[in-house]
Amino acid sequence: MSEKKISQATIKRLSVYLRFLETLKRSGIQKASSVDFEKKLGINSAQVRKDFSFFGDFGQKGVGYDVDSLFKEIQTILNLDQKIPVCLIGAGKLGTALCYFNMMQKDPMEIVSVFDNSPLKVGNKIEHLLIQPVEEMISVIQEKKIQVAIITVPGGYAQYTADRLISAGVKAILNFAPIPLKMPEGVQVQDVDFTADLHSLAYFLSK
Amino acid sequence: MSEKKISQATIKRLSVYLRFLETLKRSGIQKASSVDFEKKLGINSAQVRKDFSFFGDFGQKGVGYDVDSLFKEIQTILNLDQKIPVCLIGAGKLGTALCYFNMMQKDPMEIVSVFDNSPLKVGNKIEHLLIQPVEEMISVIQEKKIQVAIITVPGGYAQYTADRLISAGVKAILNFAPIPLKMPEGVQVQDVDFTADLHSLAYFLSK
Repeated sequence: MSEKKISQATIKRLSVYLRFLETLKRSGIQKASSVDFEKKLGINSAQVRKDFSFFGDFGQKGVGYDVDSLFKEIQTILNLDQKIPVCLIGAGKLGTALCYFNMMQKDPMEIVSVFDNSPLKVGNKIEHLLIQPVEEMISVIQEKKIQVAIITVPGGYAQYTADRLISAGVKAILNFAPIPLKMPEGVQVQDVDFTADLHSLAYFLSK
Repeated sequence: MSEKKISQATIKRLSVYLRFLETLKRSGIQKASSVDFEKKLGINSAQVRKDFSFFGDFGQKGVGYDVDSLFKEIQTILNLDQKIPVCLIGAGKLGTALCYFNMMQKDPMEIVSVFDNSPLKVGNKIEHLLIQPVEEMISVIQEKKIQVAIITVPGGYAQYTADRLISAGVKAILNFAPIPLKMPEGVQVQDVDFTADLHSLAYFLSK
């Protein structure tokens, strides 16, 4: 797969395929057709075949794709053939919920450190995760070589937090704060904006 | 604005503009230029002008857009010039966090009913919101004329929940369950998939 050509939308579909393939592996299923993908994931089978053809895996007619090798291939493309440590800043209700969610998923991208600026939260635990003071954020990130961070702080603190994360070596941020972040070249951001998602549903209501 | 031509991406930007205009209104600011939008929101000013020109609002050179009338226009396009009641199914950690988040935002799309199937949760409150048994979901939705639902149940229950919501009259679903939902024509779904967002960050890490 020519990596420069992969769009965000394709990458997110690869993530969906990867998790589906994992459930197949766990069930001992060795082959899957593009129609199986369509049935389970609601992604058109032609789209599935197109996505897989990018990296030269055309499957076998009437037999389908090899689950194990496709899983490994996608895992490698997404850099998920290794553990990726993640930190989370802002242990409020949303941040805490995301920690539990991440533990449940047992994802290779694992939240390993949590920070907050409130003395009421610092020292508490989210299961095994100790909430640490933001003052220790930079040194922990450097020590654990963390490159990915999740920001769940209030909007007013988000840019300041992002700047400090980047100064510590973070290269990618998942931003739940309701403001867009200005990032230097080479740092990736994904904004998650529930409110925009909800509002876009409202738009279609009366149509 | 020719409504059929508005893309999902534009609609989500309109939601971002709307919330920015609201903060300007609250601060008593009456005019804003496309450059103000770019500075605060990180959306290119040419894109901002293009979005607004769709509905015939070109602003005045050197003066900018009228905050009040632009706010009202976008509000009307998004159907947010009215309260829209929303229900949430699945009062786990994520669902509870979303309820608090929604209360904080004071959005016109307000979560008014919460349902869960666990006897341990039913009867508890999330602030003023009583967690009701799923058995009452259909009748409450019909009584309150709820058209929008948020699904935060485990993947295995999501399609069943969606089917029942639709049978009760729901027209739009924000889906946090990690599986895609099959919807009949005329029902809108927005999937929120944190894991895909995280995985897409991993993809760029080594590049």
